[in-house]
This record gives sequence, C-alpha cells and structure tokens, in this order.
Amino acid sequence: MMREILGERVLLYRTKAGEAVAMSAICPHRAYPLEQGQRVGDAVQCGYHGFTFGPDGTCLRVPSQSGVPQKSSLRRYPVVETAGLVWVWTGDVDMASSAQLPDLAAMGLGRDDWAVEQHALVTINARYTLLIENLLDLSHVSFIHATTIPGGEMVASIPVSVEETAQSITVVRKGQNLPANPLIKMQFPGQEDPVNQDFDAEYISPALVRTGGAMSDAASGRPLGTQNYIHLITPASPTRVHYFVNTARDFAVNNPALGQMQIAMGTKIQPEDIAAIEAIELVLQSDATLPTEISARVDNGALKVRRRLEMQIKSEQATA
Amino acid sequence: MMREILGERVLLYRTKAGEAVAMSAICPHRAYPLEQGQRVGDAVQCGYHGFTFGPDGTCLRVPSQSGVPQKSSLRRYPVVETAGLVWVWTGDVDMASSAQLPDLAAMGLGRDDWAVEQHALVTINARYTLLIENLLDLSHVSFIHATTIPGGEMVASIPVSVEETAQSITVVRKGQNLPANPLIKMQFPGQEDPVNQDFDAEYISPALVRTGGAMSDAASGRPLGTQNYIHLITPASPTRVHYFVNTARDFAVNNPALGQMQIAMGTKIQPEDIAAIEAIELVLQSDATLPTEISARVDNGALKVRRRLEMQIKSEQATA
Amino acid sequence: MMREILGERVLLYRTKAGEAVAMSAICPHRAYPLEQGQRVGDAVQCGYHGFTFGPDGTCLRVPSQSGVPQKSSLRRYPVVETAGLVWVWTGDVDMASSAQLPDLAAMGLGRDDWAVEQHALVTINARYTLLIENLLDLSHVSFIHATTIPGGEMVASIPVSVEETAQSITVVRKGQNLPANPLIKMQFPGQEDPVNQDFDAEYISPALVRTGGAMSDAASGRPLGTQNYIHLITPASPTRVHYFVNTARDFAVNNPALGQMQIAMGTKIQPEDIAAIEAIELVLQSDATLPTEISARVDNGALKVRRRLEMQIKSEQATA
Repeated sequence: MMREILGERVLLYRTKAGEAVAMSAICPHRAYPLEQGQRVGDAVQCGYHGFTFGPDGTCLRVPSQSGVPQKSSLRRYPVVETAGLVWVWTGDVDMASSAQLPDLAAMGLGRDDWAVEQHALVTINARYTLLIENLLDLSHVSFIHATTIPGGEMVASIPVSVEETAQSITVVRKGQNLPANPLIKMQFPGQEDPVNQDFDAEYISPALVRTGGAMSDAASGRPLGTQNYIHLITPASPTRVHYFVNTARDFAVNNPALGQMQIAMGTKIQPEDIAAIEAIELVLQSDATLPTEISARVDNGALKVRRRLEMQIKSEQATA
Repeated sequence: MMREILGERVLLYRTKAGEAVAMSAICPHRAYPLEQGQRVGDAVQCGYHGFTFGPDGTCLRVPSQSGVPQKSSLRRYPVVETAGLVWVWTGDVDMASSAQLPDLAAMGLGRDDWAVEQHALVTINARYTLLIENLLDLSHVSFIHATTIPGGEMVASIPVSVEETAQSITVVRKGQNLPANPLIKMQFPGQEDPVNQDFDAEYISPALVRTGGAMSDAASGRPLGTQNYIHLITPASPTRVHYFVNTARDFAVNNPALGQMQIAMGTKIQPEDIAAIEAIELVLQSDATLPTEISARVDNGALKVRRRLEMQIKSEQATA
Repeated sequence: MMREILGERVLLYRTKAGEAVAMSAICPHRAYPLEQGQRVGDAVQCGYHGFTFGPDGTCLRVPSQSGVPQKSSLRRYPVVETAGLVWVWTGDVDMASSAQLPDLAAMGLGRDDWAVEQHALVTINARYTLLIENLLDLSHVSFIHATTIPGGEMVASIPVSVEETAQSITVVRKGQNLPANPLIKMQFPGQEDPVNQDFDAEYISPALVRTGGAMSDAASGRPLGTQNYIHLITPASPTRVHYFVNTARDFAVNNPALGQMQIAMGTKIQPEDIAAIEAIELVLQSDATLPTEISARVDNGALKVRRRLEMQIKSEQATA
C-alpha cells in the first residue's frame, strides 16, 4: 500500500513475521510506483522491469543481469510500532528517536485497563493546520455538532484556561454541574445527577491532539471515568491531510456496545468537521482577498499552538 | 447566497425590510464561508464558531465572550438597487457614486411604459472581454445564430458606422428594407411589408451592452417600436463571467406572450454564444502559439471598446 | 479535425482531390477554433464570423467586406504523405526536407511485398520520452506483458548489444533456440522446432521506434520471415503524446487472419504499456522526492537514445 506522507510516496507493508515496513514507493530504476508491483516473499518486485527490493530497501535482483547497480537501495523510513499505531519518521534518519513519541499510555492507548477503538482513516482535502485549529477550539462543537454531540450546545459557553509544558499546550474547559445528557447516561448507567466534565484540547507536538477528559459526579466529586479522543494528524501534501482517530476510556472497558457507539458517533461527527475544514480550504485557495484575521479570547491556546508549530518549522529549516 | 465578483466572495441577501445587502462572505475569525452560516434576523451567524454580523458588517456577537474583538467588521459593499437590478460597488468605498450608473430608463428599464423580461443568470467559463467583443460584433449572428434568430443571416452584410460619447461606443447597423421575418410578424401583427431595423451594439462603460433598437415600416417610415437587449456583464474571476440579460420593448407591453417568446429565444441563442466564447477561452488557455490578430473593418467599434476599457483599467491602477 | 502537435493546434483535412492539409486551427480574427467551423469546398469557414481560408492558408473572404486584411494567412505546415503516413513539419519552414524522413521501406511500409496493419491512434497522458524509453527496454515485456505476448517471459534474460548509426540506435536482442510458441506456430504453420528470433528495439531520430525483427529455424538457419512493429510517436504537449502503431510482415502477406490477430494482440498489449507509462507520469508530477536514478546494463541503449535526443534538442535550440 502506498501512502502519501509529507509529499513523499511511502510504501507500507508487513513482512511475513509481521514487522511493519516503510520505504520509498518509487522504483529508482524508472520511477514506476512500487505499490503496483508484486510481493515476492518479504521483498517487493517492481511491476515494470522486475527490479526487486528487500524490506530493508536493499536492491536484491535485476532480472537482466547478475549483480545489482551501486547505490541502488530504496530509502527506508525508520518505523516504531506501539499501541496499535505505526510511527514513520520521514526526516533525517540520524534524528529519529522513539524518545520523541508522545506518552500514549497516559492517554489510555496500549494498556490493558483501557478500552480503545480505532476509527477508519479519512483523508481531508485541506491543510493540516486547519484540522489542528479545529480541534483546539472546541467552541465549534456548539455550532457544527450541535445536533450530533449530546450536550455539545453548551461547550462554547464554558470558560477556558491554557496550560503549557515543553511538549504540550492544553486548552482547559472544565464543565461544572452539567445536566447528565443521554451520552453520559449511556456511559454511566444510573447517573441521573449533574456531572462535572472536562473538555480538554491538548496539543502534543507536532500533530497529535487529545480531546475529552475526566468526568465526575458534580455534587459528590466522585470520579466516573475518563473518555479521550486521540486525533492523529498526518500531513499528506500542502493541501491534504490524513486523519486517524482513536477513542479510549478507562470505564466499562469490557462493554463493546460503548465502543460501537463511539464508532457510530464518529461517522456522524467527522463529516461535519471535514465539511467545515474543506470549505475553509476552498476559501483560502480562492483569489478572494482574505480579511484581517480576528480572534476571540478562547483562541489564545490555538494561537499559542500556531506560534509553536511555526517556530518548530523554522527551527528545523534552520538546522537543515 | 455567495457570488464571486471580480475575484471577491460577496455575500448577498435581503433584510426583512427587503433592503439588499452585499458584504464579504469570509468570516474574519477563521475564514469560514458565511453563505454556509445561518440567518438570525437581519444578521448572519457563522456556521463554525457562531460569530455574528449585522447587515452593515458590524460584528454583533462572539459566543464565548461578552464584547467583540476590535476591527472585527466585515467589509460592506455599497449597493444601489434600481430597475430590478442590484449594483454592487467593489472598489474604493469613497469612489462609489450612483451618478456613474448607466441611464437605464433610456433603454427601457424601470419604466411603466415598457415591458421587461429578466432572463436567468448564466455563468460562462471565459474572460469577460470575450463576451463584450461577442456582443460588439453582431456579424456573428449570421453564423452562430443563423438558424435561431429570424433574419439573422443578413446581419453580417449590413454596413456599420461607429458613434462615440464619453460613456458609450455604439456600433450602428441600420438594416434597410428588410423583408418582414417571422419574428417581426409576431411582434407587429399585420406587418407584411418590409421594415427598417436597427441592429445597434451600444457599449456603456464598463460592462453593459445594449443591442437591438428601433424598427419602422420601410416604405412609410412609420415607427413600429423598439426592442432592446440589455446585457449585464459581471466578471467573476479572470476566466469566469456572470451574464445577465434583460429584454425591453415599448410596444405590446401588455402582451405576455411576446415576453415568453423572448425568454424562449434566449434559451436557444445564449448557449450558442457561450459555446463559442468558451471554445475561444480554451484556445487562449492552451499552450498553442496564437496567430497575430487580424480585424475586419466592422471591428472598428469593438477595437475602440477594447482600447477604452484598457485605458480605464490603466487609469484606475494609476490612481490606486 | 484538430490535432495537438508539440503544443500547437493543427487543423488536418483532405482536399476533394485527396491532398492532406495541415494548418493552424486558430482563426487569426478572434481565435475561434477552426475545427468547429465548416468546410466550404476545399476551404474552411470560421464558425464565428465566417472568415474563410483556403487549403494553402490564404484568407479568401471576410463576409462583412470586400477584400481581406493584410497578413491574414493562416500558418501552413509542410506535409509529406508516404506509406499511408502523413508527416507534418511544425518547425522552421525553410528547414523542412523530406530527405529527413526515415527509410520506411526498409521496415516494410509502403511496399507491395509486405502486409501492413495500421492500429488505432491512442493518446497517452505522459511525456513522450517515457514511451520511447518503454520501447527501448524490452525487458519490460517479461513483466507487464508476461501473459499477453507469447514467449514474452524470456525476453528479459536475452543478452543485448547496441548498434549505432548517425540516424539510429538499436538495442539488439538475439533470441537463440527458443521453443516455438503459439504465436510462432500461428505465423509459420508447421514450425514446431525451436527458432532464433530477433527482439530489436531500433530508435530512429527523433521519435520512431521499430521493434521485432527476423525469425529463422534455429537448427537449419532457414529464414522464416520478419515481423516489425513500427511505433510512431508524436508529442502533443509536455505531458501528452499521440501513439500510432503500424505492424508489417514479409510473410503470409495475403493472409488477413494474421493481420487481424496483430490488431487483436495490440488491443491487449497497448493498455498495459499505457497504464505503466501514465503511472510513472503521475509519480513524476507528484511532489515526491525522486530517488537518484539507477540503470541496468541493458539500459545502455536507452541511455544513449536519451542523450542523443537531449543533444538534438539543445542543438535545435542553439540554432533558433
């Protein structure tokens, strides 16, 4: 399978032993797309002239001759697989370090004591920053998801604060004494009393956002559980982005109905976000003069994220 | 409704009182297209985060806070509505002046003693100048409309002259002693004798063209009436143009069948012009080397229009 | 009919006497595409305002006036018709010379003692050099045509050599002692013994490739016959190419079933080449970083062709 990542064409497959492989999908012989070739054991044979490459990118065979040309290896991308996610490093190979991966366990991924759902990949025709900013300003929930997220209509009116660490910027929205909506009642059967609910939007460099958070009984303070939405954002091209969502909860982990409900909700909510983001992308790509941007006070966190991302890009460009 | 005008995205709607409003269709918060938002009374609420703007462009509300950001108004475009037409000024607001509007009454618009039909808007994938030049050289009628405009086959052979004023350039074609064709007989029942008929093409700066003109009995000189075609041309983008047509006559004003006939003729004639103009646009956008342009003597008026338009554009650019 | 050749829009038709005409398809009056006009005898009348041009490009008539404008001729392209092929010269007219045409008779075209089939034109969305390189490296036969060309699976393993002349570069592949495959048996009924078969790829400047070649009985050396595939390559635009194929044989020339079989094979083989070439074009047009190109030893001939073509282009540009 080929996936476009940061403009590169990356071939993704698993060896027979199950190891994830990521390497260039362009045959260095005559640029044929290798995803249209054939698997030969753990190797890949180009569909045009039969040049064959091993899972480490090494050219193994050129059909018309013995031996292979010099410097004939495919670019291999370092890969780490963890918590059901495959992380592909497309930068300088010497800079690859799994130490840079976010703390997935803290969000509930890759643990036995949480339930996780992996939602289907969608590809959005928009720059990836529009998706990050969508997630960082959850006041949109009250407008584009007003009918699809139970209780969503009140999100925009919850006060926000911003918390920063070296790796993250979190827009904190602490909902207080909210009526138990149908979703809450489904997640916590018997909970009829009001709840406190966190609507966090935690940005983790460079392109992961966790939303959701902890819920508790408002009167007693008794914890109910935590529901996280982990948004994994992979830029495909300057105007296209791959969007993966994982949902994770630390309650009712053995209740598959709750997972199915999360998947079903996602199929309604996600198209609303995609429509908004792609509509904005079309405006940005039009010839129209853009108005000078204005921001609300709740955009403070999203603006911090935008600046941090710009600084990271500048810093990386200065290094390169 | 959003309409693209000179590259800008313009939101068009009417207040409850019926006043036409034209303002920027791009939310200054995060560039969401406001035509996908909601009407709230006379205001418009953005569909993404609920920023709300009044019909004068003022930002009235930001849901997550009291008060609104500074300099948060949408650009408002001056509007004049007259004779069933809404005129939108997208230039420097201080230069807007209704004194610059063409004399619509002289063409028969907005008067009780003329009958007017407004034809459906079409958008053509071509630069607007191709439409102006199409209308200024009516010799095309003998070729692309030979079967759809009664009597059209003889237009190309009628001699032309050119009349100029500060606001207009008119290519004058005075048809003499033409046989009464089926259209004439329908417009003037009983007229079996030859007629004199004007085939004017009057350009009025910057983008209105009146065609048609007066008809009379050829032998007696007795006036029969005037049929005007008023072509309203709005550039959308460098390669797209909105095209409105109004037809107006000062005879049989209470005979709706004549108006229906004009509409029906338009639905046959207009696609022929559009096909020609879009075919030329494709040639102009191709990589092909264009031949050095040649012109006929009847193109004199169209060439004067082209030069006047170019001078107006240069003059406006020099001012800006 | 209009055909795009090297970016130009060329009008192609035959006079009543059957002479092939090639001239600019753009009316010099207002750039209307002349292929949408009308034939009037041997002349072409523009469909927009009726300007009429003779088969030598001369403007014959402007409907609204007597006489025609100065310098109103269409560009006429020199044409030579030979062996059922029309050759159009789009360069400097003084440089046109039929002496530059390839020796078609040597390949079997335009002769009574050979049978020839003209295959249907296809237009490929790819740069023309990809098609030339496809044909020069017949080792692709073993991969993309493995099931459609009988005996194709062994082509990649036949050793190659390269022969050069001033006009041609030939990749020579002499198949020795090959089992008589179903195609051989159809072409030479009774031939059950192994054959020697040439798989030439002869490039003739600037854009003709002959593949195929002579066949003989392996044991006795007795000649069986020659089957040529003549590939005529016309660049349409930088990323589009017209592709004509003629097949020619000097045996069983009065057996139409063999010709029908060649046409039928072509309709299966050609889509495989087109798919590969267009897939590569998409890779080249993508934003992906292309790997440093590697080549096999069998690519030596194709690389010589590439350099010769580049030198010819540079030389022509230096002259111009």
